[in-house]
Amino acid sequence: MRAARYYGEKDIRIESVDEDACGEGQVRIAPAFVGICGTDLHEYLGGPTFAPVTPHPLTQDTIPITLGHEFSGIITEVGKGVTFSVGQRVVVQPTISCGTCFACKNNAENVCYQGGFIGLSGGGGGLSDSVVVPEKSVLKLPDNIPLDVGALVEPLSVAWHAISAAPLTPDSTVLVLGGGPIGLAIVQCLRALKTKMIIMSEVSKSRQNFAREFGAHHIIDPLSSDSVAISRKLSGGNGPDFVFDCAGVPASIITACQAVRAKGTVVNVAIWEKQIPFQPNLLVFKEAMYTAVLGYRRRDVQAVIDHMADESLTPAKMITSKIHLEHLVEGGIKALIKDKESHVKILVDMGSKL
Amino acid sequence: MRAARYYGEKDIRIESVDEDACGEGQVRIAPAFVGICGTDLHEYLGGPTFAPVTPHPLTQDTIPITLGHEFSGIITEVGKGVTFSVGQRVVVQPTISCGTCFACKNNAENVCYQGGFIGLSGGGGGLSDSVVVPEKSVLKLPDNIPLDVGALVEPLSVAWHAISAAPLTPDSTVLVLGGGPIGLAIVQCLRALKTKMIIMSEVSKSRQNFAREFGAHHIIDPLSSDSVAISRKLSGGNGPDFVFDCAGVPASIITACQAVRAKGTVVNVAIWEKQIPFQPNLLVFKEAMYTAVLGYRRRDVQAVIDHMADESLTPAKMITSKIHLEHLVEGGIKALIKDKESHVKILVDMGSKL
Repeated sequence: MRAARYYGEKDIRIESVDEDACGEGQVRIAPAFVGICGTDLHEYLGGPTFAPVTPHPLTQDTIPITLGHEFSGIITEVGKGVTFSVGQRVVVQPTISCGTCFACKNNAENVCYQGGFIGLSGGGGGLSDSVVVPEKSVLKLPDNIPLDVGALVEPLSVAWHAISAAPLTPDSTVLVLGGGPIGLAIVQCLRALKTKMIIMSEVSKSRQNFAREFGAHHIIDPLSSDSVAISRKLSGGNGPDFVFDCAGVPASIITACQAVRAKGTVVNVAIWEKQIPFQPNLLVFKEAMYTAVLGYRRRDVQAVIDHMADESLTPAKMITSKIHLEHLVEGGIKALIKDKESHVKILVDMGSKL
Repeated sequence: MRAARYYGEKDIRIESVDEDACGEGQVRIAPAFVGICGTDLHEYLGGPTFAPVTPHPLTQDTIPITLGHEFSGIITEVGKGVTFSVGQRVVVQPTISCGTCFACKNNAENVCYQGGFIGLSGGGGGLSDSVVVPEKSVLKLPDNIPLDVGALVEPLSVAWHAISAAPLTPDSTVLVLGGGPIGLAIVQCLRALKTKMIIMSEVSKSRQNFAREFGAHHIIDPLSSDSVAISRKLSGGNGPDFVFDCAGVPASIITACQAVRAKGTVVNVAIWEKQIPFQPNLLVFKEAMYTAVLGYRRRDVQAVIDHMADESLTPAKMITSKIHLEHLVEGGIKALIKDKESHVKILVDMGSKL
């Protein structure tokens, strides 16, 4: 079968590989649509970071590994003891966890001490004609959610999990820093929860337009305006209750900590490339909290599916392009690197449809 | 009357100044014992930081200001409408707050947007023969707490407030970084709450001994041992539930974030002199929380007094020296700067005793 294999920095190859066997408790899926994620770009540009260079403790795999962790697909085979059926439309929660560490035992399998992701840590990936995953990683896609939109469940789940770290009320004022796919997904999730005021700070005009379309009430261009002063004014002089840092750059962490109100919460949703200068007093003098989130739990994924099914989340416009597997690097990864502002999400159409 | 006046960096003068009038709702106190605080040292060495160089919005004062914010004393005069009586033994909660900002209206007067401290922001200070404060800043000292121990209420209140930022249970494992006065006060407060495991990481042998004496169960010397590895082992392999950073140096924030368990909380209790290098991923991959505290609320001060009264807090051994006001700079501030490791708390004996 075809598979997009990650060998290391700037080295992704479309190869022919053997299919894995589908054993007890496992499900074989023919991926339908696979989203290209910022993490994939990071691995391509500067990795391996997530991709294992020594055997991953849970998958035992080392690079090359198959990419693709945001995907929908169709079940083509079920192992012994599995309750799913061949032909069902599904999405995959790609979290890999040990089940025995402190995090796993305390309902935080998303930060399993040995954890990883299908499509990043070995164990197969969505960018192949067939992937075998444990039954517990599979969630049914309701009939009214198309397979392409199903590939958006994963980034929306990141956002859903992120906002669950903030004790939001319908009266909350929220500032979102960065209008990339995750920032835009957070805007949609906040909107689904009917949050009173959603402010997006983003430099790109194109992303500003997406943010507006997805429900941000106010847009700030931090290049021409003062995000701290404006968000403070918009929130009645106190500063926003919550700030989501989806930008992950030296300026955004400072803006986040300066903008948030006394006793407010900054939620970091970014993965950081390197150390940055930080002055903890920014938090001290207002007793603000800085918290960080990673991935999602199964309940976040299910919540996103439920909200998509009842149409309180309608993210289809996030899909700005669809390409075929053979164009993954040029038409997908390089296109996102070169022109990330006009794209939100590029999907790879794997050709499997019901 | 005599007063220790702060003029700026390395310029503290014992001068003769006029007494303030004691108006309606105010109380005049003759300070008995006044602790010298790390903040006083910072102001002396590198200030003004807290001390106002333009009129403070609430006190209207500018430097020179009278120092002394950790003190006990005796009431010598009461203004109209005050329920305290002359001769009562009291301590002062030095927080100055506006009462009208978002923080004040939301029970966080300790981070009032215009806030300050008696003895740092103008409005008089404990290092004088007489200080006039609002009645609301005064708390009665029970008969069984000596006036010198009463001067420890303030640093213990910082610690009490800090631990109230952590959802401790009796089963918690706690790592405290830095065995200065606040770190040692935190050890005592944790012990008063019967916390299962208190680990102190501190380089100074003398401070290690104090920590042991005040109830730390384990002592780590971070110069010769790995605080992260040892605290993880002591906590059953997960890392401590809570880490209190009382050191406030580039190494301590990294140790704190590396040591804390998945979903754990780092509480910063330090004031930072400058920016430091920080990698937020240290929190991301375990979804840990970094929170910061400042000062205390009245209920923290009352809790400390109550716990001192019932002897679950017995901090008298923190007092390592007593000096007179004329020796404040040489015998107090410079002694603490030169030989901070053999001292915990130096008190200035103002001579007022009942």
